Amino acid sequence: MMRVYLDHNATAPLRVEARDAMIAAMDVVGNPSSVHGEGRATKAIVERARAQVAAAVGCNRAEVVFTSGATEAASMLGRLTAGADVLVDAASHDALWAHVRMSGSGGSPNGGHTLAMGLANGETGVITPAPEKVDGKWPLGNARADWLMLDVTQAVGRIPFAFSWSGADFAVLSGHKFGGPKGVGVLIVRDNVDIEALSVGGGQEMGRRSGTENIIGIAGMGAAIDAAMRDLDRGVWDHVEKLRIILETGVEVASKETILVGKDTARIANTSCLLTPGWKGETQVMAMDLAGFAISAGSACSSGKVKASRVLMAMGYGPDDAASAIRVSLGPESAEEDVTRFVDVWTDKLERHRKRSA
Amino acid sequence: MMRVYLDHNATAPLRVEARDAMIAAMDVVGNPSSVHGEGRATKAIVERARAQVAAAVGCNRAEVVFTSGATEAASMLGRLTAGADVLVDAASHDALWAHVRMSGSGGSPNGGHTLAMGLANGETGVITPAPEKVDGKWPLGNARADWLMLDVTQAVGRIPFAFSWSGADFAVLSGHKFGGPKGVGVLIVRDNVDIEALSVGGGQEMGRRSGTENIIGIAGMGAAIDAAMRDLDRGVWDHVEKLRIILETGVEVASKETILVGKDTARIANTSCLLTPGWKGETQVMAMDLAGFAISAGSACSSGKVKASRVLMAMGYGPDDAASAIRVSLGPESAEEDVTRFVDVWTDKLERHRKRSA
Repeated sequence: MMRVYLDHNATAPLRVEARDAMIAAMDVVGNPSSVHGEGRATKAIVERARAQVAAAVGCNRAEVVFTSGATEAASMLGRLTAGADVLVDAASHDALWAHVRMSGSGGSPNGGHTLAMGLANGETGVITPAPEKVDGKWPLGNARADWLMLDVTQAVGRIPFAFSWSGADFAVLSGHKFGGPKGVGVLIVRDNVDIEALSVGGGQEMGRRSGTENIIGIAGMGAAIDAAMRDLDRGVWDHVEKLRIILETGVEVASKETILVGKDTARIANTSCLLTPGWKGETQVMAMDLAGFAISAGSACSSGKVKASRVLMAMGYGPDDAASAIRVSLGPESAEEDVTRFVDVWTDKLERHRKRSA
Repeated sequence: MMRVYLDHNATAPLRVEARDAMIAAMDVVGNPSSVHGEGRATKAIVERARAQVAAAVGCNRAEVVFTSGATEAASMLGRLTAGADVLVDAASHDALWAHVRMSGSGGSPNGGHTLAMGLANGETGVITPAPEKVDGKWPLGNARADWLMLDVTQAVGRIPFAFSWSGADFAVLSGHKFGGPKGVGVLIVRDNVDIEALSVGGGQEMGRRSGTENIIGIAGMGAAIDAAMRDLDRGVWDHVEKLRIILETGVEVASKETILVGKDTARIANTSCLLTPGWKGETQVMAMDLAGFAISAGSACSSGKVKASRVLMAMGYGPDDAASAIRVSLGPESAEEDVTRFVDVWTDKLERHRKRSA
């Protein structure tokens, strides 16, 4: 059976550019901390990728710290701001919320409050623009924060973003959402922020993240972000948005009771969150998987744990409605046939569900 | 110029088995946390590698926690034992020492003292057998520890090691020392030890290490440790030891003043630490690099920072002598010609050094 992969917000297929860069890096022997020729050759791979990331997200190369993913990057922020309050936007990723629980556990090298927020939400695709400073502070409701951390994991490569223009102090992103390998991410740290306290061990990444660098993965991430930026420039997401509209129109025709979450708000082009009251998201995911479609229910970052989406609850949906949501997330390689077939099969499953429930 | 790579303790070339497994993993789309077919396929890659690691190091699969390297694994131990004293053997890696500085910074989920030690030293190759418990505690000099953590990074694949037999509570290792990719490591946690407190974020690795898994890297690590164990079984290090003896004999003939560090103690087969008083290790590394040989001076894990080796100082050498050491570390693919050519060229460089110094 031909599989149709519509779960790009969980992870995207590896781009061919990333694959090629990774295979090339496999032949380069050496530890980037070594001073000999082999060491310098691997160091050059890391620095090339750093330049690619910096060019893609509009920051200085020295502001880019490679990590094992956005979760580690957010965790470094947690250490950075330990003891300080972290204000987290309700629609943020689990990794940010984790640091709300962590806060108060230690010293605070920078002090003050940090506002952590996602620029584009992975479950709904809804875009939350970065705030502007009010009286020199970052506002969230009535609260005011000293530092701003943007999770741009679902935004990078999909909407224009420039770290330097955002005014943020930190940003985190993950390579595998835009076609890089899993297990590589970036913490961007504005260059006037002192994060010396993060150093533990060998002192790699200018003392900000110790441990031998994931050379092959970093090479793949650099090539992927470069290719993703070219895709963004040439308007690939306009095409994806047309596919999403075809999908959503089909769903609306088939099911009047289905809610298109965030329909009339700014969203990234690839994401539909479809909430059909009374039909469990988990059930839909399994039925569609058997029919050859990969989609997800709720947050895909929960290691198989099924729980009502905090994001949807924060948007005002009750727990039963929130548990009835699925996420369909397209990618640059998605085709019109993928979404029309999806609508046909999903409509068929919905009709069976109605019959069973009748 | 044909390069000769003699710096395997810094990092080993990628094994062909690892390369093949990584390229195969590149074609598997899906996030291991996703419940659909694509997600389950990536999860299966992680679980296969987990079984390979468990079989190789003699532990249960459930005791294996994948990390981004030994440094992260050691850092997790630091969090685990934060607030408790960590006793570190003088010959240990920087990443362990870092946690001596970290200790006292927070709560201690497990309490008590931890003894952290390297089983095989990366700079000298000297093997320190794991201690045996005395009155239910781990001894280090007159001190007694409640927990034992073994850094087996330089030992795995080179000498027989079984976690279950060692009695240790924790072990850390890194994939790239035995031919896996850089940026993948393992923390082994004895299964009766509660490390729930480590969970931050999505809850992967049974809540012990959050973040989307480095699928491609983990696949490579599993294949590499499997191949390394086959190499160990068929006696590849006996051959490497013969090469090392050829190298050390040649050095002794050429230079009576050169000290073979740890010569008469148990060492891993591949490592020579050559200390030539008055001839800076750094100078030797650069001269040999220009002549086509990759070797290292002092600890290779210091991100290009040159400093006198703590390990050699702890063995009783003064700072000047310690700064005059080089490390030559062979690998399974090293050939006799590599070491005979090394001796010839090194001897030539030594004679030039003597003339300049005369």
